[in-house]
Amino acid sequence: MLVLKVQPLSKAAFAPFGDVIETADSDFFMINNNNTQRFHRLAQVELSDASDKAIISIFRAKSLTMPLQVKMLERHPKGSQAFMPLKGQPFLIVVAPAGPEPELDQVQAFIATGEQGINYHLGTWHHPILCCAASDDFLVVDRAGDGNNCDEYYFAEGVQIMLDPQLALSGSSS
Amino acid sequence: MLVLKVQPLSKAAFAPFGDVIETADSDFFMINNNNTQRFHRLAQVELSDASDKAIISIFRAKSLTMPLQVKMLERHPKGSQAFMPLKGQPFLIVVAPAGPEPELDQVQAFIATGEQGINYHLGTWHHPILCCAASDDFLVVDRAGDGNNCDEYYFAEGVQIMLDPQLALSGSSS
Repeated sequence: MLVLKVQPLSKAAFAPFGDVIETADSDFFMINNNNTQRFHRLAQVELSDASDKAIISIFRAKSLTMPLQVKMLERHPKGSQAFMPLKGQPFLIVVAPAGPEPELDQVQAFIATGEQGINYHLGTWHHPILCCAASDDFLVVDRAGDGNNCDEYYFAEGVQIMLDPQLALSGSSS
Repeated sequence: MLVLKVQPLSKAAFAPFGDVIETADSDFFMINNNNTQRFHRLAQVELSDASDKAIISIFRAKSLTMPLQVKMLERHPKGSQAFMPLKGQPFLIVVAPAGPEPELDQVQAFIATGEQGINYHLGTWHHPILCCAASDDFLVVDRAGDGNNCDEYYFAEGVQIMLDPQLALSGSSS
């Protein structure tokens, strides 16, 4: 059994998987007659085909029962996918690097503060949204276009990957 | 003097200017093993050139003194620009239809709830972000690429356009 250690989300730790969308430690410049700080280009939408469009949606997610067994991961082979929390609530992230299939020893878990969003790079394996509250809303920026843009990978039945957000506090792992 | 009546933001009223990004009265479908409602494609990013990119930024805005004199509007001739509030706070919007310059008799004002975002269509004249709280954060999705993407239009000195958010409650106008 693999119990995932839940790490605090940071740009450095998440760099192999995507962008962290946050103002902390991000550069900005002033716009609008010095009334607004623009924290510029925290993430970029990745598209594959000339006819692809970047679209904006809202995901309304229900909480999952914890501790959670991670049975599958998915990836979007034709575009990036960004999630920004709209209610200021923390959420969990489980990822593995892009590749033909997720490598078990490279699966990582993170917890985002309610002021951090993420942008999965094209191809990053990730678990569907994992909200901690009873319900949560996320602004989602991803790709619309022709062809399949979602691959799912189910781990073999004997593989047990457990996610316990309590471990974010204790820092335990095994 | 023109005092702008502040209207509640709705998809129908805002349609000439852009999209309203909200779950209310929006279609969704279920994803993620029925754990998540996807309110799909509430807005689409508009880009002009093949090399353009859709990018994600955060704007941190300071409140403006009210009542406010609307001295200028701006437009982005090469792309759309979406704003989604991240702290659940209402904000104000002043717009005029796309065209060579804003038409004074077509300037309109709206107030968004903290659960509504907007996406200005390419070319829509709009005031820089107008937050009601002392400070507010917005996720912004807009266009990066070559060439000028911001035109500003300053009204003549004799033109007084006033915005008073109190009017959203009374519904007064003149």
